[in-house]
Amino acid sequence: MKAVRLHAYHQQPVVEEVPEPTISGPLDVIVKIGGAGVCRTDLHILEGQWAEAMAPDLPYILGHENAGWVHEIGSAVTNVKVGDTVILHPTPTCGLCRACRGGQDMHCTTSTFPGLGVDGGMAELLLTSARACVLLDPATRPQDVAALADAGITAYHAVRKALPLLYPGTTCVLIGAGGLGHIGIQCLAALTATNIVVVDRNAEALKLAEQLGAHHTVVADGGQVAAVQELTDGQGADVVLDFVAEQGAEQDGFAMTRSGGSYYVIGYGGQLSVPTLDIISTERNIVGNIVGTYNELAELMVLAQTGKVTLHTSTFPLDAAVDALAELDAGNVRGRAILVP
Amino acid sequence: MKAVRLHAYHQQPVVEEVPEPTISGPLDVIVKIGGAGVCRTDLHILEGQWAEAMAPDLPYILGHENAGWVHEIGSAVTNVKVGDTVILHPTPTCGLCRACRGGQDMHCTTSTFPGLGVDGGMAELLLTSARACVLLDPATRPQDVAALADAGITAYHAVRKALPLLYPGTTCVLIGAGGLGHIGIQCLAALTATNIVVVDRNAEALKLAEQLGAHHTVVADGGQVAAVQELTDGQGADVVLDFVAEQGAEQDGFAMTRSGGSYYVIGYGGQLSVPTLDIISTERNIVGNIVGTYNELAELMVLAQTGKVTLHTSTFPLDAAVDALAELDAGNVRGRAILVP
Amino acid sequence: MKAVRLHAYHQQPVVEEVPEPTISGPLDVIVKIGGAGVCRTDLHILEGQWAEAMAPDLPYILGHENAGWVHEIGSAVTNVKVGDTVILHPTPTCGLCRACRGGQDMHCTTSTFPGLGVDGGMAELLLTSARACVLLDPATRPQDVAALADAGITAYHAVRKALPLLYPGTTCVLIGAGGLGHIGIQCLAALTATNIVVVDRNAEALKLAEQLGAHHTVVADGGQVAAVQELTDGQGADVVLDFVAEQGAEQDGFAMTRSGGSYYVIGYGGQLSVPTLDIISTERNIVGNIVGTYNELAELMVLAQTGKVTLHTSTFPLDAAVDALAELDAGNVRGRAILVP
Amino acid sequence: MKAVRLHAYHQQPVVEEVPEPTISGPLDVIVKIGGAGVCRTDLHILEGQWAEAMAPDLPYILGHENAGWVHEIGSAVTNVKVGDTVILHPTPTCGLCRACRGGQDMHCTTSTFPGLGVDGGMAELLLTSARACVLLDPATRPQDVAALADAGITAYHAVRKALPLLYPGTTCVLIGAGGLGHIGIQCLAALTATNIVVVDRNAEALKLAEQLGAHHTVVADGGQVAAVQELTDGQGADVVLDFVAEQGAEQDGFAMTRSGGSYYVIGYGGQLSVPTLDIISTERNIVGNIVGTYNELAELMVLAQTGKVTLHTSTFPLDAAVDALAELDAGNVRGRAILVP
Repeated sequence: MKAVRLHAYHQQPVVEEVPEPTISGPLDVIVKIGGAGVCRTDLHILEGQWAEAMAPDLPYILGHENAGWVHEIGSAVTNVKVGDTVILHPTPTCGLCRACRGGQDMHCTTSTFPGLGVDGGMAELLLTSARACVLLDPATRPQDVAALADAGITAYHAVRKALPLLYPGTTCVLIGAGGLGHIGIQCLAALTATNIVVVDRNAEALKLAEQLGAHHTVVADGGQVAAVQELTDGQGADVVLDFVAEQGAEQDGFAMTRSGGSYYVIGYGGQLSVPTLDIISTERNIVGNIVGTYNELAELMVLAQTGKVTLHTSTFPLDAAVDALAELDAGNVRGRAILVP
Repeated sequence: MKAVRLHAYHQQPVVEEVPEPTISGPLDVIVKIGGAGVCRTDLHILEGQWAEAMAPDLPYILGHENAGWVHEIGSAVTNVKVGDTVILHPTPTCGLCRACRGGQDMHCTTSTFPGLGVDGGMAELLLTSARACVLLDPATRPQDVAALADAGITAYHAVRKALPLLYPGTTCVLIGAGGLGHIGIQCLAALTATNIVVVDRNAEALKLAEQLGAHHTVVADGGQVAAVQELTDGQGADVVLDFVAEQGAEQDGFAMTRSGGSYYVIGYGGQLSVPTLDIISTERNIVGNIVGTYNELAELMVLAQTGKVTLHTSTFPLDAAVDALAELDAGNVRGRAILVP
Repeated sequence: MKAVRLHAYHQQPVVEEVPEPTISGPLDVIVKIGGAGVCRTDLHILEGQWAEAMAPDLPYILGHENAGWVHEIGSAVTNVKVGDTVILHPTPTCGLCRACRGGQDMHCTTSTFPGLGVDGGMAELLLTSARACVLLDPATRPQDVAALADAGITAYHAVRKALPLLYPGTTCVLIGAGGLGHIGIQCLAALTATNIVVVDRNAEALKLAEQLGAHHTVVADGGQVAAVQELTDGQGADVVLDFVAEQGAEQDGFAMTRSGGSYYVIGYGGQLSVPTLDIISTERNIVGNIVGTYNELAELMVLAQTGKVTLHTSTFPLDAAVDALAELDAGNVRGRAILVP
Repeated sequence: MKAVRLHAYHQQPVVEEVPEPTISGPLDVIVKIGGAGVCRTDLHILEGQWAEAMAPDLPYILGHENAGWVHEIGSAVTNVKVGDTVILHPTPTCGLCRACRGGQDMHCTTSTFPGLGVDGGMAELLLTSARACVLLDPATRPQDVAALADAGITAYHAVRKALPLLYPGTTCVLIGAGGLGHIGIQCLAALTATNIVVVDRNAEALKLAEQLGAHHTVVADGGQVAAVQELTDGQGADVVLDFVAEQGAEQDGFAMTRSGGSYYVIGYGGQLSVPTLDIISTERNIVGNIVGTYNELAELMVLAQTGKVTLHTSTFPLDAAVDALAELDAGNVRGRAILVP
């Protein structure tokens, strides 16, 4: 089959013929890919940023945001059958550790991350596990939802964790209205009556944010912390969801958070540095967020299938994977780039 | 009456005669002090560390950890009567703002902090509010419990917030077995079956920690992070309660926290600096803590009155306030120093 | 001033001149009534149903759903000033008991209930407390929101308690789309993405329910339990909110609740009778609900002032109070009847 | 192998030779039984009480409370290996449904219940699933802990759910200090500082309750509701855990619950009948409880292995199963009867 493989860091991946994956375990599932998202993390992988953390054997197939149709199943698979339309949780989990038994898929002690170190979904077929498969309405086109498999679940997970804090009368600041953030805005609008303030450098992104449910937008031109203070009577926001968390956004985000409030870190790349006196004197929280649970992905698909969360996508054929990455890097992709094999 | 007043920073406070406080508001309460705790924060006040944050008019009476007997009440006070034994919540609150109406006394928008900027309890009488009074069993000696009014409530508040994370099989690291920490250990022992690991530089403090319920102790001699990793199969602790949060303890505390775990900041003075990648890749939380709620102080008094939390105290007469501060500064006080007028 | 007073059970109340209330306590507030809701509970009071539970001295002024403008304040009132537009929490609370200190206004040990046993708001002026006053935008007409003071807060409180159970993919059944229920539907639509199923005997009420956000409606004609089972693949609903809870609705409501689900009782009058085996074998919960907290009323006013919760009202002059009660009894009132002095 | 099989209702089970179970699925596990609890539910099974609900094919092997050593494993089992000491969660679950993915094992849509309808553990070998196995310290004797597999997990589950309600100063009433209840008392003592009040008809059970941590005991001689009111200043208990829930205990339990409190149903057999007015006017909750989660069983084993929960047991050889049942029925068993093959 055709696949997009990383052979070496600081080089383009190669679209080439590789052997098809085969079923070996009883819970294995092979999925025919209908859409594979192209993500900024893929650029970071090429740059070698994940080389140390994941230490993968090269070459491997990229693609960690996948949806498609079930192609073949292992002997013990009962939750999906051949032909089913599915979206894939990004981390097939063991199902047996304490975290898995408590529904905390993110903290499975032996999960893998296809597309980050093992073969992913920028290919015709992907080997995954029954535990990663979320069944979709057969009318769903995988390419329309694939980006929810990683960008979507991550945004939804953070919003869902913040829900108890977002009662009517509160303010939620969302920093970064890009691939993840624009999903986050829609989740906030669907699930809360909070006052949504979106902060971004890009005026177009802010225009889209308004259409998706933002009540206020703030251009991040240096005055963004003051602007949030002004919008909140000098108190700051109850919740800040930071989808950037680098280049100073992380300091801004904490500074925008009110006494007793919570700053959710979702993006990464920066360094957060705060006096412990500032943490305790205002009793603020800093909350880490990574991917989400299987059930959260299933919930997000309910929002998607009822039209409450929609994605802007640009599709590329699998052969054009290198172009898609280049366009993404150049900032030319509107919405999410999706490879369609 | 006699009182311990701060006239200028970087000077000793003065024990002197001052006018008695008088009732002016309907919810005012005047308390005859039975015990006033001497706290490291008092040393910090003398050093001018709180000058900017609180910007108080000098002179004022020190003492933010108080218990005694009701001496006089305002016209609308119904919860206590003259002669009642009481311990005082450190921040008399307005009772009308959103935070007060939700029981979050720490976040009252107009509370005061007697002893930090307005007249406190190192005196014969203290003016406070009905809302600060927690009724005690008349058999209780105020001097025996006064230190729970601030050190106690702060430790209890952090432990209580962490309780849902501390199910059997978890590990809780507690950094700093001093004035607050040794109460925290007792609260953990009374309210959980978690595995309690106490970290301190001082071998004697660790000996006391064991008597109070610590299952393991670790000398903070440079190898403390590694020691915690070893005690937790390389995973780190589910919860870290950091009563120090300065001089590197804050970096240690975060490093000791496991994936999905929470690091509670209670002490202060240091600077926490972490890459946002470390926050998200492990989905850790950093949780601020300040004082506690009125109800939490009442709950802590239940633990105290049933013998589940006890305090080691050394009493000094009010006239010896300067000596008490000097002894505390010199590290010569065993347990908590209490002024008894 | 003019007021609507109950002199004897099983008789009409009397519109008559009575002395104006006066300020006696420091937290007292006198409100000039702008709107007082007429409620089915008022009919029950006339019938003597509350005579035993409340044991009030007669005569007293009816009216437990009130909004207006601050007319006079006690010496210690700081949260409102004369002229402010306010809606009134139905139960002025003490502010000092454990429940009040935890924000659980419903469980204050010494609250009163104006209009149920002590003088209420069907009058030109009402004596209440600073703690009952929720400040409104001055542009708000009290008569437009008065019904939120009791019907609204009760519906909102139940919905808010159920929110953590109502993630996307769940089903919430709401029984009774009347005065409270039609507010409940709007709260569900504003705060969740749950599948809303409304059950009522009245086809017109169901039509309104659809306009307000119900996804499915079920006529309560005897087949309602089966209809809910069919809408939920035979599983039952995750949450049932029962605004009727009499005449068999209470048994239906429990029967419509799925394994692990929760049945919220909000209406009253019936007798719930279930084998304990049915409770445990399916691990279902039965959840009581009464009024709500001060903060919940404030949150609901945010929803009202942003247009997310609206009320259908019919106004009557104070002199026409007896007519209004008669119309309500006869089922002729569209929306909520409001007396406007 | 030898096994205790039910051939017909209203007859004694038969100890007889049957074929050994065999591995067929990849997650199958065969356990050599070290101890199988004899439970009142077994008597109810013989009486046909579960015939309708479970509709099992007869004959089948009894025994739903099991511990032992891993004897053989399927091809995909990774969490245990042959020779491991294990206790078995009572309901092997699918691991793939929404409930399983959220850690709610009790609500798995396709779980089985060995010993209630399919072959259980009163035998030399038991066929179960990897998902049911909780690994124990190899020093543990299965016969010493087997009763925790069902009686224990059920008591622990209810206590754990109630923990957030049981802060210092609250009162928890526990009705029924028998097989489950005496574990519940120990869990309360290990995990809370609540005031524990135990109600039972049997004076000896109350004596044991005191040794296990009860602060007050009440003989259920007709005055038990009044006694609880007196112990709680006329308020009732914050939480009532009812391990009986039949023969009137269910009405008592609800009546003993204070305003805003929660009545936990754990036993069964009775009929709870309450006016909906009583539910709403006091905002009380009725909480169903069934078995518990896999993680809860693992947590309980931590309490057992650290000596915080201990069991009184009487062992019988497998051949004496009919005797054990008869002794249990006659009320002659001290602690839990355990069959040891």
